[in-house]
Amino acid sequence: MSDIAKRLLAGEQRALSRLITMLERGDPEAAATMKAVDGYTGRAYTVGITGPPGAGKSTIVDQLTQLVRKTGQTIGIIAVDPTSPFSGGAILGDRIRMQRHYLDSGVFIRSVATRGQAGGLPRVVKSMVRALDAAGIDLILVETVGVGQTELGIISVADTVLVALNPESGDAIQTLKAGVMEIADVYVVNKADRDGADQMATAITGMLQMSTISPQWSPPVLLTTAHDGQGIEDLWSRIQDHRNFLTTSGSLDDRRGTKRKREFLEAVEEVLSQRLRDRVESDPGLIATLEEVSGKETDPYSAALEYLDSHPLSSNKPDAHGT
Amino acid sequence: MSDIAKRLLAGEQRALSRLITMLERGDPEAAATMKAVDGYTGRAYTVGITGPPGAGKSTIVDQLTQLVRKTGQTIGIIAVDPTSPFSGGAILGDRIRMQRHYLDSGVFIRSVATRGQAGGLPRVVKSMVRALDAAGIDLILVETVGVGQTELGIISVADTVLVALNPESGDAIQTLKAGVMEIADVYVVNKADRDGADQMATAITGMLQMSTISPQWSPPVLLTTAHDGQGIEDLWSRIQDHRNFLTTSGSLDDRRGTKRKREFLEAVEEVLSQRLRDRVESDPGLIATLEEVSGKETDPYSAALEYLDSHPLSSNKPDAHGT
Repeated sequence: MSDIAKRLLAGEQRALSRLITMLERGDPEAAATMKAVDGYTGRAYTVGITGPPGAGKSTIVDQLTQLVRKTGQTIGIIAVDPTSPFSGGAILGDRIRMQRHYLDSGVFIRSVATRGQAGGLPRVVKSMVRALDAAGIDLILVETVGVGQTELGIISVADTVLVALNPESGDAIQTLKAGVMEIADVYVVNKADRDGADQMATAITGMLQMSTISPQWSPPVLLTTAHDGQGIEDLWSRIQDHRNFLTTSGSLDDRRGTKRKREFLEAVEEVLSQRLRDRVESDPGLIATLEEVSGKETDPYSAALEYLDSHPLSSNKPDAHGT
Repeated sequence: MSDIAKRLLAGEQRALSRLITMLERGDPEAAATMKAVDGYTGRAYTVGITGPPGAGKSTIVDQLTQLVRKTGQTIGIIAVDPTSPFSGGAILGDRIRMQRHYLDSGVFIRSVATRGQAGGLPRVVKSMVRALDAAGIDLILVETVGVGQTELGIISVADTVLVALNPESGDAIQTLKAGVMEIADVYVVNKADRDGADQMATAITGMLQMSTISPQWSPPVLLTTAHDGQGIEDLWSRIQDHRNFLTTSGSLDDRRGTKRKREFLEAVEEVLSQRLRDRVESDPGLIATLEEVSGKETDPYSAALEYLDSHPLSSNKPDAHGT
């Protein structure tokens, strides 16, 4: 086992920081380290917090962190942000109030930008969660923003998914589009001191009653006012309820196994995509095909099938070797 | 050329409807038809309308349709919607006001659900745009919702991208996250009769002045009140300005060629992904690997590399055949 893997398993934060930076850069040593420490993961519990912009997700994360730190648990926070074309980095404005935790060695905070990702949660986030887990962190909070694939991607890392909503964000139906209701384990209507909070909670409860998504677990719909901490203790207790439900029902291991399978399939696709993109620069046949497609000599989809047919990538038989 | 291809090129709406249904079902005849008609495309102009929920995109599309129909141009409208887990279909509530156009044979309307897509714009939307184009429709309006990959995916079909914003949607910075500023050709601050519209327009203009995204085209920032049609004529004139800019600068052909290349690469990836998913059920080696990954005998990423190494899909040399 490499030095960094050993130091990571010993819980050294500097090793964790270094590994994450290596993961972000796609360093091959990071992959080797992840392989070495993989068997030591599975102790941490991961809570995903997602929802539209302005729902107060960062404030909820901040308050949960403060509450849970009192119990002595160590916490890892991963904030997944879309990137601004202006700053060139993740938008950190929301993170400012996190600063009070930066001096606490029991809290590890990292932001990840999603720029250039094809959709879903960046694979590096899954590796980061596993790295934090291997480093012995007890509770991992992953925050994602936006309505769409990145938001839904939270299910691929979280044991418990918390969906935060803002009563002022307009139509609850709009907010609940895009499959969010299928992944939510706990709903939080934040900014409960504002107009419409009770109505929104009632509307969500009503929609949940019409649904048959999870007959075993009924997602609670909570009201919080995160900026002054109201409702956070109740929220934490509901997260623990969900954890207990998953553990006692045996769903936790099933869910985690399914996540690992999905992550494997996504990794295969990602490596294939990367190889394809690499060939765009180097494969004369591919370059010629691209010119034909661009010049309307052939249509994109037919050209794709033909390219795969004349190419080892094309095989759809498990045992075929370039036939 | 098949009968349906001929009827499509003759502008028959029933052929168009049937082709689109075939495209949605992944019918192989649809692919053959698209190949046959591909050379007849490129006459239509495509405008994408995107932005967060509640920005009034459907109303803008409705008003643009009414205005442009007066000039005699035919119009195709494609509404790309996230799917509700409750309805099982695209959410059509926003489309109700479109109904007045359903009786107009010069307007063709179709909704597409994005459910189960890995991110970006579903490929079927690109094929639909091309089918509408081949059928002789003059102007194609594609509306997408959401902040994220589906929203950014609009760039893959639109000649002109219109980003609609709601002055009440909160922080402009939040709304403009996720790379939207890089793809916008025209900004519309809709609901200009509400508080904050002027400030939002000023904020966007300020951000644009700081940016160097497109030195040749400065995206105009327009105020509209779409529900009563205010600002729509100006909007249409700005869209035409952008079209003239693209045509005279030669960018239109470049952009369209680039889109076709990107669509080809996405089709290759999609076919590979589909083949991989098919194997999950049928390839004993893959099934065994998935069990190993799930049971933590190996980590997902290393397993992915190993699977590709022992498999024809793994080749990253253009000329390799299963070596």
